Amino acid sequence: MKTISENRAFGGVQGVYTHSSALCDCDMTFGLFLPEQAESGPVPVVWYLSGLTCTHENAMVKAGAQKWAAEAGLAMVFPDTSPRGPGVANDEAYDLGQGAGFYVNATEAPWAPHFRMWDYVTEELPNILFSAFPVAEERQSIMGHSMGGHGALTIAMGFPGRFRSVSAFAPIANPTASDWGRKQFTAYLGPDESKWAPHDATLLMRKRGFDGPILIDQGASDQFLDLLKPEALAEAMAARRQGGILRMQKGYDHSYFFVSTFIEDHIAFHAAALYD
Amino acid sequence: MKTISENRAFGGVQGVYTHSSALCDCDMTFGLFLPEQAESGPVPVVWYLSGLTCTHENAMVKAGAQKWAAEAGLAMVFPDTSPRGPGVANDEAYDLGQGAGFYVNATEAPWAPHFRMWDYVTEELPNILFSAFPVAEERQSIMGHSMGGHGALTIAMGFPGRFRSVSAFAPIANPTASDWGRKQFTAYLGPDESKWAPHDATLLMRKRGFDGPILIDQGASDQFLDLLKPEALAEAMAARRQGGILRMQKGYDHSYFFVSTFIEDHIAFHAAALYD
Repeated sequence: MKTISENRAFGGVQGVYTHSSALCDCDMTFGLFLPEQAESGPVPVVWYLSGLTCTHENAMVKAGAQKWAAEAGLAMVFPDTSPRGPGVANDEAYDLGQGAGFYVNATEAPWAPHFRMWDYVTEELPNILFSAFPVAEERQSIMGHSMGGHGALTIAMGFPGRFRSVSAFAPIANPTASDWGRKQFTAYLGPDESKWAPHDATLLMRKRGFDGPILIDQGASDQFLDLLKPEALAEAMAARRQGGILRMQKGYDHSYFFVSTFIEDHIAFHAAALYD
Repeated sequence: MKTISENRAFGGVQGVYTHSSALCDCDMTFGLFLPEQAESGPVPVVWYLSGLTCTHENAMVKAGAQKWAAEAGLAMVFPDTSPRGPGVANDEAYDLGQGAGFYVNATEAPWAPHFRMWDYVTEELPNILFSAFPVAEERQSIMGHSMGGHGALTIAMGFPGRFRSVSAFAPIANPTASDWGRKQFTAYLGPDESKWAPHDATLLMRKRGFDGPILIDQGASDQFLDLLKPEALAEAMAARRQGGILRMQKGYDHSYFFVSTFIEDHIAFHAAALYD
Protein backbone atom coordinates (compact mmCIF):
# COMPACT_ATOMS: atom_id res chain seq x y z
CA MET A 1 0.00 0.00 0.00
CA LYS A 2 1.28 3.44 -0.94
CA THR A 3 0.47 6.75 0.72
CA ILE A 4 -0.54 9.29 -1.92
CA SER A 5 -1.20 12.16 0.48
CA GLU A 6 -1.95 12.92 4.10
CA ASN A 7 -3.38 16.29 5.11
CA ARG A 8 -4.15 17.49 8.60
CA ALA A 9 -7.89 18.24 8.78
CA PHE A 10 -10.07 19.06 11.78
CA GLY A 11 -7.44 17.76 14.18
CA GLY A 12 -7.21 14.42 12.36
CA VAL A 13 -5.70 13.24 9.08
CA GLN A 14 -7.29 13.00 5.64
CA GLY A 15 -5.27 10.37 3.81
CA VAL A 16 -5.32 8.97 0.29
CA TYR A 17 -3.85 5.51 -0.32
CA THR A 18 -3.33 3.25 -3.32
CA HIS A 19 -3.00 -0.51 -3.22
CA SER A 20 -2.81 -3.35 -5.69
CA SER A 21 -6.22 -5.02 -5.75
CA ALA A 22 -6.23 -8.76 -6.36
CA LEU A 23 -9.99 -8.76 -6.90
CA CYS A 24 -10.10 -5.89 -9.39
CA ASP A 25 -6.73 -6.80 -10.88
CA CYS A 26 -5.57 -3.18 -10.94
CA ASP A 27 -4.43 -0.46 -8.54
CA MET A 28 -7.25 0.94 -6.42
CA THR A 29 -7.26 4.25 -4.56
CA PHE A 30 -9.27 5.20 -1.49
CA GLY A 31 -9.57 8.11 0.95
CA LEU A 32 -9.59 7.64 4.70
CA PHE A 33 -10.28 10.28 7.31
CA LEU A 34 -9.01 9.40 10.78
CA PRO A 35 -10.09 11.68 13.63
CA GLU A 36 -7.72 12.71 16.39
CA GLN A 37 -9.29 10.06 18.65
CA ALA A 38 -7.74 7.34 16.46
CA GLU A 39 -4.36 8.19 17.97
CA SER A 40 -5.43 6.46 21.16
CA GLY A 41 -7.18 3.42 19.72
CA PRO A 42 -9.62 2.08 17.14
CA VAL A 43 -12.56 4.32 16.23
CA PRO A 44 -15.90 3.51 14.60
CA VAL A 45 -16.08 3.93 10.83
CA VAL A 46 -18.59 5.20 8.29
CA TRP A 47 -18.29 4.00 4.70
CA TYR A 48 -19.15 6.63 2.10
CA LEU A 49 -19.93 5.25 -1.38
CA SER A 50 -19.94 7.77 -4.20
CA GLY A 51 -22.04 8.18 -7.31
CA LEU A 52 -21.63 7.98 -11.08
CA THR A 53 -18.48 9.63 -12.51
CA CYS A 54 -16.99 10.07 -9.03
CA THR A 55 -13.65 8.85 -7.74
CA HIS A 56 -12.59 8.48 -4.09
CA GLU A 57 -12.07 12.23 -4.12
CA ASN A 58 -15.42 13.93 -4.72
CA ALA A 59 -17.07 13.36 -1.36
CA MET A 60 -13.74 13.72 0.40
CA VAL A 61 -13.36 17.31 -0.82
CA LYS A 62 -16.96 18.43 -1.36
CA ALA A 63 -19.27 16.79 1.18
CA GLY A 64 -17.88 18.55 4.25
CA ALA A 65 -18.11 15.35 6.30
CA GLN A 66 -14.80 15.58 8.15
CA LYS A 67 -15.91 18.37 10.46
CA TRP A 68 -18.68 16.22 11.90
CA ALA A 69 -16.72 12.97 11.80
CA ALA A 70 -13.98 14.69 13.80
CA GLU A 71 -16.43 15.94 16.40
CA ALA A 72 -18.00 12.50 16.73
CA GLY A 73 -14.67 10.65 16.67
CA LEU A 74 -15.53 8.65 13.56
CA ALA A 75 -13.32 7.45 10.72
CA MET A 76 -14.69 7.79 7.20
CA VAL A 77 -13.58 5.72 4.24
CA PHE A 78 -14.13 6.86 0.66
CA PRO A 79 -13.64 4.03 -1.87
CA ASP A 80 -13.42 4.60 -5.61
CA THR A 81 -16.51 3.77 -7.71
CA SER A 82 -14.87 1.30 -10.11
CA PRO A 83 -11.62 -0.28 -11.22
CA ARG A 84 -9.58 2.04 -13.44
CA GLY A 85 -6.61 2.13 -15.76
CA PRO A 86 -5.62 1.58 -19.38
CA GLY A 87 -6.05 -2.21 -19.13
CA VAL A 88 -9.56 -1.94 -17.68
CA ALA A 89 -12.64 -2.13 -19.92
CA ASN A 90 -14.57 1.09 -20.38
CA ASP A 91 -17.46 2.65 -22.26
CA GLU A 92 -17.96 6.10 -23.71
CA ALA A 93 -21.14 6.60 -21.68
CA TYR A 94 -20.72 8.27 -18.27
CA ASP A 95 -22.96 5.64 -16.69
CA LEU A 96 -21.17 2.42 -17.71
CA GLY A 97 -17.63 1.17 -17.11
CA GLN A 98 -15.01 3.22 -15.29
CA GLY A 99 -16.64 5.52 -12.74
CA ALA A 100 -19.83 3.46 -12.85
CA GLY A 101 -19.18 0.13 -11.15
CA PHE A 102 -22.65 0.02 -9.58
CA TYR A 103 -21.28 -2.01 -6.66
CA VAL A 104 -21.80 -5.40 -8.32
CA ASN A 105 -19.54 -8.28 -9.37
CA ALA A 106 -19.65 -8.39 -13.15
CA THR A 107 -20.02 -11.84 -14.72
CA GLU A 108 -20.19 -10.72 -18.35
CA ALA A 109 -17.56 -9.77 -20.95
CA PRO A 110 -15.76 -7.42 -21.15
CA TRP A 111 -16.40 -6.42 -17.52
CA ALA A 112 -15.88 -9.63 -15.53
CA PRO A 113 -12.06 -9.51 -15.17
CA HIS A 114 -11.98 -6.20 -13.23
CA PHE A 115 -15.44 -5.03 -12.21
CA ARG A 116 -15.82 -6.73 -8.79
CA MET A 117 -16.93 -3.74 -6.74
CA TRP A 118 -19.33 -5.70 -4.49
CA ASP A 119 -16.57 -7.94 -3.22
CA TYR A 120 -14.02 -5.12 -3.27
CA VAL A 121 -16.03 -2.89 -0.97
CA THR A 122 -17.28 -5.66 1.32
CA GLU A 123 -14.23 -7.94 1.48
CA GLU A 124 -10.89 -6.77 0.10
CA LEU A 125 -10.97 -3.14 1.21
CA PRO A 126 -12.32 -4.00 4.70
CA ASN A 127 -9.44 -6.48 5.12
CA ILE A 128 -6.95 -3.75 4.32
CA LEU A 129 -8.72 -1.15 6.42
CA PHE A 130 -9.01 -3.23 9.56
CA SER A 131 -5.49 -4.58 9.39
CA ALA A 132 -3.65 -1.34 8.55
CA PHE A 133 -5.58 1.38 10.41
CA PRO A 134 -7.00 1.96 13.91
CA VAL A 135 -10.60 1.34 12.87
CA ALA A 136 -13.09 -0.78 14.80
CA GLU A 137 -14.51 -3.62 12.70
CA GLU A 138 -17.39 -4.18 15.13
CA ARG A 139 -18.61 -0.59 14.72
CA GLN A 140 -19.40 0.13 11.08
CA SER A 141 -22.06 2.15 9.33
CA ILE A 142 -22.52 2.88 5.65
CA MET A 143 -23.86 5.67 3.50
CA GLY A 144 -23.72 6.92 -0.07
CA HIS A 145 -24.97 9.31 -2.72
CA SER A 146 -26.94 8.37 -5.85
CA MET A 147 -25.28 5.20 -7.26
CA GLY A 148 -23.44 5.11 -3.93
CA GLY A 149 -26.75 5.32 -2.07
CA HIS A 150 -27.81 2.25 -4.05
CA GLY A 151 -24.54 0.59 -3.02
CA ALA A 152 -24.93 1.52 0.65
CA LEU A 153 -28.51 0.26 0.89
CA THR A 154 -27.93 -3.00 -0.98
CA ILE A 155 -24.72 -3.78 0.92
CA ALA A 156 -26.30 -2.92 4.27
CA MET A 157 -29.19 -5.27 3.57
CA GLY A 158 -26.89 -7.82 1.93
CA PHE A 159 -24.76 -8.25 5.05
CA PRO A 160 -27.18 -8.46 7.98
CA GLY A 161 -25.51 -7.62 11.28
CA ARG A 162 -22.47 -5.92 9.80
CA PHE A 163 -23.66 -2.31 9.79
CA ARG A 164 -25.29 -0.47 12.69
CA SER A 165 -27.02 2.07 10.47
CA VAL A 166 -27.36 3.04 6.82
CA SER A 167 -28.12 6.36 5.15
CA ALA A 168 -28.34 7.67 1.62
CA PHE A 169 -28.62 10.88 -0.35
CA ALA A 170 -30.81 10.53 -3.43
CA PRO A 171 -30.14 6.81 -3.87
CA ILE A 172 -30.90 4.91 -7.06
CA ALA A 173 -33.69 3.20 -5.22
CA ASN A 174 -35.18 0.78 -7.71
CA PRO A 175 -32.57 0.12 -10.41
CA THR A 176 -34.29 -2.96 -11.89
CA ALA A 177 -37.07 -0.59 -12.98
CA SER A 178 -34.85 2.31 -14.11
CA ASP A 179 -32.52 3.21 -16.95
CA TRP A 180 -30.00 3.73 -14.15
CA GLY A 181 -29.88 0.00 -13.47
CA ARG A 182 -31.38 -2.04 -16.30
CA LYS A 183 -28.68 -0.94 -18.72
CA GLN A 184 -25.84 -1.60 -16.27
CA PHE A 185 -27.19 -4.85 -14.84
CA THR A 186 -27.67 -6.19 -18.37
CA ALA A 187 -24.09 -5.31 -19.20
CA TYR A 188 -22.49 -6.47 -15.95
CA LEU A 189 -24.77 -9.34 -14.87
CA GLY A 190 -26.45 -10.50 -18.08
CA PRO A 191 -30.13 -10.63 -19.02
CA ASP A 192 -31.35 -13.00 -16.27
CA GLU A 193 -33.19 -10.58 -13.98
CA SER A 194 -33.13 -12.96 -11.02
CA LYS A 195 -29.42 -12.10 -10.75
CA TRP A 196 -30.31 -8.42 -10.47
CA ALA A 197 -32.61 -8.73 -7.47
CA PRO A 198 -29.89 -8.70 -4.74
CA HIS A 199 -28.83 -5.32 -6.13
CA ASP A 200 -32.13 -3.47 -5.91
CA ALA A 201 -32.81 -1.67 -2.62
CA THR A 202 -36.56 -1.67 -3.12
CA LEU A 203 -36.70 -5.42 -3.79
CA LEU A 204 -34.41 -6.10 -0.81
CA MET A 205 -36.56 -3.91 1.39
CA ARG A 206 -39.67 -5.86 0.38
CA LYS A 207 -37.91 -9.16 1.03
CA ARG A 208 -35.88 -8.60 4.18
CA GLY A 209 -35.42 -4.97 5.25
CA PHE A 210 -32.61 -3.70 7.47
CA ASP A 211 -32.09 -4.49 11.14
CA GLY A 212 -31.22 -0.96 12.24
CA PRO A 213 -32.14 2.66 11.50
CA ILE A 214 -32.26 4.07 7.97
CA LEU A 215 -32.04 7.74 6.98
CA ILE A 216 -32.73 8.84 3.41
CA ASP A 217 -32.65 12.39 2.10
CA GLN A 218 -34.05 13.15 -1.35
CA GLY A 219 -34.15 16.57 -3.02
CA ALA A 220 -37.61 17.44 -4.29
CA SER A 221 -36.03 19.36 -7.20
CA ASP A 222 -33.60 16.58 -8.08
CA GLN A 223 -33.15 16.54 -11.86
CA PHE A 224 -32.95 12.73 -11.81
CA LEU A 225 -36.07 11.86 -9.82
CA ASP A 226 -37.47 9.74 -12.67
CA LEU A 227 -34.34 7.58 -12.60
CA LEU A 228 -33.99 7.41 -8.82
CA LYS A 229 -37.58 6.32 -8.07
CA PRO A 230 -37.68 7.20 -4.35
CA GLU A 231 -41.42 6.48 -4.33
CA ALA A 232 -40.76 2.75 -4.86
CA LEU A 233 -38.46 2.54 -1.85
CA ALA A 234 -40.73 4.76 0.24
CA GLU A 235 -43.62 2.42 -0.41
CA ALA A 236 -41.53 -0.65 0.40
CA MET A 237 -40.17 0.86 3.62
CA ALA A 238 -43.61 1.83 4.83
CA ALA A 239 -45.13 -1.51 3.84
CA ARG A 240 -42.48 -3.36 5.84
CA ARG A 241 -42.78 -0.93 8.81
CA GLN A 242 -39.03 -0.47 8.41
CA GLY A 243 -37.61 1.76 11.15
CA GLY A 244 -36.26 4.82 9.41
CA ILE A 245 -36.67 8.33 8.14
CA LEU A 246 -37.18 9.47 4.58
CA ARG A 247 -36.99 13.20 4.07
CA MET A 248 -38.10 14.94 0.89
CA GLN A 249 -36.17 18.21 0.90
CA LYS A 250 -37.97 21.00 -0.93
CA GLY A 251 -35.89 22.96 -3.42
CA TYR A 252 -32.79 20.76 -3.30
CA ASP A 253 -31.29 19.07 -6.34
CA HIS A 254 -28.85 16.18 -6.93
CA SER A 255 -25.62 18.09 -6.32
CA TYR A 256 -23.05 18.12 -3.56
CA PHE A 257 -24.61 21.37 -2.36
CA PHE A 258 -27.53 19.17 -1.34
CA VAL A 259 -25.25 16.56 0.24
CA SER A 260 -23.17 19.09 2.15
CA THR A 261 -26.29 20.80 3.47
CA PHE A 262 -27.48 17.68 5.26
CA ILE A 263 -24.26 15.74 5.91
CA GLU A 264 -24.19 16.95 9.52
CA ASP A 265 -27.48 15.17 10.15
CA HIS A 266 -26.23 11.97 8.55
CA ILE A 267 -23.03 11.85 10.56
CA ALA A 268 -24.95 12.55 13.77
CA PHE A 269 -27.38 9.79 12.82
CA HIS A 270 -24.57 7.27 12.35
CA ALA A 271 -22.74 8.44 15.47
CA ALA A 272 -25.86 7.79 17.53
CA ALA A 273 -26.03 4.23 16.21
CA LEU A 274 -22.30 3.56 16.47
CA TYR A 275 -22.03 4.74 20.07
CA ASP A 276 -25.29 3.10 21.14
CA MET B 1 -25.44 38.69 -16.94
CA LYS B 2 -26.18 35.00 -17.43
CA THR B 3 -27.09 32.48 -14.76
CA ILE B 4 -24.88 29.40 -15.12
CA SER B 5 -26.35 27.48 -12.20
CA GLU B 6 -28.30 27.92 -9.00
CA ASN B 7 -28.32 25.19 -6.35
CA ARG B 8 -30.21 25.18 -3.11
CA ALA B 9 -27.70 24.96 -0.26
CA PHE B 10 -28.17 25.35 3.49
CA GLY B 11 -31.55 26.98 2.98
CA GLY B 12 -30.11 29.57 0.59
CA VAL B 13 -28.90 29.53 -3.01
CA GLN B 14 -25.40 28.93 -4.37
CA GLY B 15 -25.38 30.64 -7.75
CA VAL B 16 -22.81 30.92 -10.53
CA TYR B 17 -23.07 33.84 -12.95
CA THR B 18 -21.19 35.03 -16.03
CA HIS B 19 -21.04 38.56 -17.31
CA SER B 20 -19.20 40.50 -19.96
CA SER B 21 -16.44 42.46 -18.23
CA ALA B 22 -15.60 45.82 -19.77
CA LEU B 23 -12.46 46.11 -17.62
CA CYS B 24 -11.06 42.66 -18.38
CA ASP B 25 -12.44 42.67 -21.93
CA CYS B 26 -13.70 39.09 -21.64
CA ASP B 27 -16.45 37.11 -19.97
CA MET B 28 -15.97 36.74 -16.23
CA THR B 29 -17.58 34.16 -13.96
CA PHE B 30 -18.27 34.42 -10.23
CA GLY B 31 -20.02 32.43 -7.51
CA LEU B 32 -22.46 34.00 -5.06
CA PHE B 33 -24.01 32.37 -2.04
CA LEU B 34 -27.15 34.08 -0.78
CA PRO B 35 -28.51 32.89 2.56
CA GLU B 36 -32.23 32.47 3.17
CA GLN B 37 -32.26 35.83 4.97
CA ALA B 38 -31.61 37.58 1.63
CA GLU B 39 -35.21 36.82 0.67
CA SER B 40 -36.36 39.54 3.05
CA GLY B 41 -33.74 42.20 2.32
CA PRO B 42 -30.08 42.99 1.78
CA VAL B 43 -27.58 40.94 3.80
CA PRO B 44 -23.93 41.61 4.67
CA VAL B 45 -21.33 40.12 2.33
CA VAL B 46 -17.94 38.44 2.66
CA TRP B 47 -15.62 38.47 -0.35
CA TYR B 48 -13.56 35.31 -0.77
CA LEU B 49 -10.51 35.67 -3.03
CA SER B 50 -8.91 32.43 -4.21
CA GLY B 51 -5.34 31.36 -4.79
CA LEU B 52 -3.12 30.36 -7.69
CA THR B 53 -4.67 28.02 -10.28
CA CYS B 54 -8.14 28.47 -8.78
CA THR B 55 -11.31 29.62 -10.49
CA HIS B 56 -14.48 30.95 -8.80
CA GLU B 57 -15.30 27.32 -8.07
CA ASN B 58 -12.63 25.92 -5.73
CA ALA B 59 -13.59 27.65 -2.51
CA MET B 60 -17.25 27.45 -3.42
CA VAL B 61 -17.16 23.65 -3.45
CA LYS B 62 -14.29 22.83 -1.08
CA ALA B 63 -14.08 25.41 1.71
CA GLY B 64 -17.36 24.51 3.40
CA ALA B 65 -18.16 28.18 4.00
CA GLN B 66 -21.86 28.14 3.12
CA LYS B 67 -22.92 26.28 6.28
CA TRP B 68 -21.59 29.08 8.47
CA ALA B 69 -22.57 31.90 6.13
CA ALA B 70 -26.13 30.55 6.17
CA GLU B 71 -26.20 30.44 9.95
CA ALA B 72 -24.86 33.98 10.20
CA GLY B 73 -27.06 35.32 7.39
CA LEU B 74 -24.11 36.38 5.25
CA ALA B 75 -23.71 36.41 1.48
CA MET B 76 -20.39 35.20 0.07
CA VAL B 77 -18.99 36.16 -3.29
CA PHE B 78 -16.32 34.07 -5.03
CA PRO B 79 -14.65 35.93 -7.94
CA ASP B 80 -12.39 34.25 -10.46
CA THR B 81 -8.61 34.77 -10.08
CA SER B 82 -7.91 36.19 -13.55
CA PRO B 83 -9.38 36.98 -16.95
CA ARG B 84 -9.68 33.88 -19.13
CA GLY B 85 -10.33 32.73 -22.66
CA PRO B 86 -8.59 32.06 -25.96
CA GLY B 87 -7.98 35.77 -26.65
CA VAL B 88 -6.39 36.36 -23.23
CA ALA B 89 -2.61 36.23 -22.75
CA ASN B 90 -1.27 33.27 -20.82
CA ASP B 91 1.92 31.58 -19.71
CA GLU B 92 2.84 27.93 -19.33
CA ALA B 93 3.76 28.42 -15.68
CA TYR B 94 1.00 27.83 -13.14
CA ASP B 95 1.88 31.07 -11.36
CA LEU B 96 1.63 33.58 -14.20
CA GLY B 97 -1.23 34.53 -16.51
CA GLN B 98 -4.61 32.82 -16.41
CA GLY B 99 -5.39 31.61 -12.89
CA ALA B 100 -2.71 33.90 -11.47
CA GLY B 101 -3.93 37.49 -11.74
CA PHE B 102 -2.41 38.48 -8.38
CA TYR B 103 -5.12 41.13 -7.90
CA VAL B 104 -3.22 43.90 -9.70
CA ASN B 105 -3.85 46.05 -12.79
CA ALA B 106 -1.24 45.03 -15.33
CA THR B 107 0.49 47.85 -17.17
CA GLU B 108 2.92 45.74 -19.23
CA ALA B 109 2.59 43.76 -22.45
CA PRO B 110 1.12 41.25 -23.09
CA TRP B 111 -0.94 41.47 -19.90
CA ALA B 112 -2.27 45.04 -19.84
CA PRO B 113 -5.32 44.59 -22.11
CA HIS B 114 -7.07 42.03 -19.85
CA PHE B 115 -5.36 41.63 -16.47
CA ARG B 116 -7.15 44.30 -14.42
CA MET B 117 -8.07 42.22 -11.38
CA TRP B 118 -7.57 45.02 -8.83
CA ASP B 119 -10.19 47.21 -10.48
CA TYR B 120 -12.36 44.23 -11.36
CA VAL B 121 -12.67 43.03 -7.78
CA THR B 122 -12.96 46.49 -6.22
CA GLU B 123 -15.03 48.34 -8.83
CA GLU B 124 -16.71 46.42 -11.65
CA LEU B 125 -17.83 43.34 -9.75
CA PRO B 126 -19.06 45.34 -6.73
CA ASN B 127 -21.17 47.48 -9.09
CA ILE B 128 -22.80 44.36 -10.49
CA LEU B 129 -23.19 42.74 -7.11
CA PHE B 130 -24.84 45.68 -5.37
CA SER B 131 -27.16 46.49 -8.26
CA ALA B 132 -28.32 42.96 -9.08
CA PHE B 133 -28.48 41.16 -5.73
CA PRO B 134 -29.83 41.83 -2.21
CA VAL B 135 -26.41 42.52 -0.71
CA ALA B 136 -25.64 45.41 1.66
CA GLU B 137 -22.85 47.63 0.31
CA GLU B 138 -22.28 49.22 3.73
CA ARG B 139 -21.53 45.83 5.34
CA GLN B 140 -18.61 44.17 3.58
CA SER B 141 -15.72 42.04 4.77
CA ILE B 142 -13.02 40.31 2.77
CA MET B 143 -10.92 37.18 3.04
CA GLY B 144 -8.79 34.91 0.89
CA HIS B 145 -6.39 32.00 0.62
CA SER B 146 -2.73 32.19 -0.48
CA MET B 147 -2.64 34.58 -3.49
CA GLY B 148 -6.21 35.43 -2.46
CA GLY B 149 -5.04 36.18 1.06
CA HIS B 150 -2.58 38.62 -0.49
CA GLY B 151 -5.47 40.11 -2.46
CA ALA B 152 -7.74 40.38 0.57
CA LEU B 153 -5.12 42.07 2.76
CA THR B 154 -3.91 44.52 0.12
CA ILE B 155 -7.44 45.46 -0.96
CA ALA B 156 -8.62 45.83 2.64
CA MET B 157 -5.74 48.19 3.39
CA GLY B 158 -6.05 49.83 -0.03
CA PHE B 159 -9.64 50.92 0.55
CA PRO B 160 -9.79 52.29 4.10
CA GLY B 161 -13.31 52.27 5.50
CA ARG B 162 -14.78 49.88 2.96
CA PHE B 163 -14.33 46.59 4.82
CA ARG B 164 -15.29 45.91 8.43
CA SER B 165 -12.82 43.04 8.84
CA VAL B 166 -10.24 41.09 6.86
CA SER B 167 -8.98 37.52 7.21
CA ALA B 168 -6.61 35.25 5.35
CA PHE B 169 -5.48 31.65 5.14
CA ALA B 170 -1.76 31.32 4.40
CA PRO B 171 -1.53 34.64 2.55
CA ILE B 172 1.39 35.56 0.30
CA ALA B 173 2.42 38.06 2.93
CA ASN B 174 5.45 39.79 1.49
CA PRO B 175 5.43 39.30 -2.29
CA THR B 176 8.04 41.98 -3.07
CA ALA B 177 10.53 39.72 -1.26
CA SER B 178 9.30 36.38 -2.66
CA ASP B 179 9.37 34.39 -5.88
CA TRP B 180 5.60 34.46 -5.48
CA GLY B 181 5.51 38.18 -6.21
CA ARG B 182 8.74 39.45 -7.76
CA LYS B 183 8.23 37.38 -10.89
CA GLN B 184 4.60 38.39 -11.31
CA PHE B 185 5.03 42.05 -10.39
CA THR B 186 7.90 42.33 -12.88
CA ALA B 187 5.70 40.82 -15.57
CA TYR B 188 2.50 42.70 -14.77
CA LEU B 189 3.80 46.01 -13.37
CA GLY B 190 7.31 46.33 -14.79
CA PRO B 191 10.66 46.63 -13.04
CA ASP B 192 9.98 49.83 -11.04
CA GLU B 193 9.53 48.44 -7.53
CA SER B 194 7.79 51.57 -6.25
CA LYS B 195 4.79 50.38 -8.29
CA TRP B 196 4.81 47.09 -6.40
CA ALA B 197 4.54 48.55 -2.90
CA PRO B 198 0.72 49.03 -2.85
CA HIS B 199 0.47 45.28 -3.49
CA ASP B 200 2.52 43.98 -0.58
CA ALA B 201 0.61 43.33 2.64
CA THR B 202 3.69 43.64 4.81
CA LEU B 203 4.68 47.01 3.32
CA LEU B 204 1.10 48.27 3.63
CA MET B 205 0.95 47.10 7.21
CA ARG B 206 4.14 49.00 8.01
CA LYS B 207 2.81 52.14 6.30
CA ARG B 208 -0.84 52.30 7.28
CA GLY B 209 -2.34 49.12 8.78
CA PHE B 210 -6.03 48.26 8.80
CA ASP B 211 -8.77 50.03 10.71
CA GLY B 212 -10.55 46.92 11.95
CA PRO B 213 -9.83 43.40 13.13
CA ILE B 214 -7.55 41.01 11.22
CA LEU B 215 -7.49 37.22 11.49
CA ILE B 216 -4.73 35.19 9.83
CA ASP B 217 -4.33 31.41 9.95
CA GLN B 218 -1.09 29.83 8.77
CA GLY B 219 -0.33 26.11 8.70
CA ALA B 220 2.97 25.30 10.41
CA SER B 221 3.52 22.43 7.93
CA ASP B 222 2.65 24.53 4.88
CA GLN B 223 4.85 23.38 2.00
CA PHE B 224 5.12 26.98 0.77
CA LEU B 225 6.20 28.75 3.95
CA ASP B 226 9.38 30.08 2.31
CA LEU B 227 7.30 31.78 -0.38
CA LEU B 228 4.54 33.03 1.92
CA LYS B 229 6.79 34.70 4.51
CA PRO B 230 4.29 35.00 7.36
CA GLU B 231 7.11 36.13 9.66
CA ALA B 232 7.41 39.41 7.76
CA LEU B 233 3.74 40.25 8.21
CA ALA B 234 3.75 39.04 11.81
CA GLU B 235 6.59 41.40 12.60
CA ALA B 236 4.88 44.30 10.84
CA MET B 237 1.54 43.67 12.58
CA ALA B 238 3.16 43.52 15.99
CA ALA B 239 5.33 46.57 15.32
CA ARG B 240 2.26 48.60 14.37
CA ARG B 241 0.24 47.21 17.32
CA GLN B 242 -2.34 46.24 14.69
CA GLY B 243 -5.47 44.77 16.28
CA GLY B 244 -5.66 41.21 15.10
CA ILE B 245 -4.94 37.55 15.55
CA LEU B 246 -2.31 35.46 13.80
CA ARG B 247 -2.57 31.74 14.45
CA MET B 248 0.17 29.27 13.52
CA GLN B 249 -1.66 25.96 13.21
CA LYS B 250 0.55 22.96 14.00
CA GLY B 251 0.46 20.12 11.49
CA TYR B 252 -1.63 21.91 8.86
CA ASP B 253 -0.51 22.43 5.26
CA HIS B 254 -1.56 24.70 2.38
CA SER B 255 -4.56 22.69 1.20
CA TYR B 256 -8.29 23.18 1.38
CA PHE B 257 -8.32 20.65 4.21
CA PHE B 258 -6.61 23.39 6.20
CA VAL B 259 -9.02 26.06 4.99
CA SER B 260 -12.13 23.99 5.65
CA THR B 261 -10.92 23.13 9.14
CA PHE B 262 -10.87 26.76 10.24
CA ILE B 263 -13.42 28.41 7.95
CA GLU B 264 -16.03 28.33 10.72
CA ASP B 265 -13.83 30.59 12.83
CA HIS B 266 -13.29 33.00 9.94
CA ILE B 267 -16.99 33.34 9.14
CA ALA B 268 -17.80 33.87 12.82
CA PHE B 269 -15.04 36.48 12.98
CA HIS B 270 -16.50 38.40 10.04
CA ALA B 271 -20.07 38.00 11.29
CA ALA B 272 -19.08 39.60 14.59
CA ALA B 273 -17.64 42.60 12.73
CA LEU B 274 -20.49 42.86 10.23
CA TYR B 275 -23.24 42.79 12.85
CA ASP B 276 -21.36 45.04 15.26
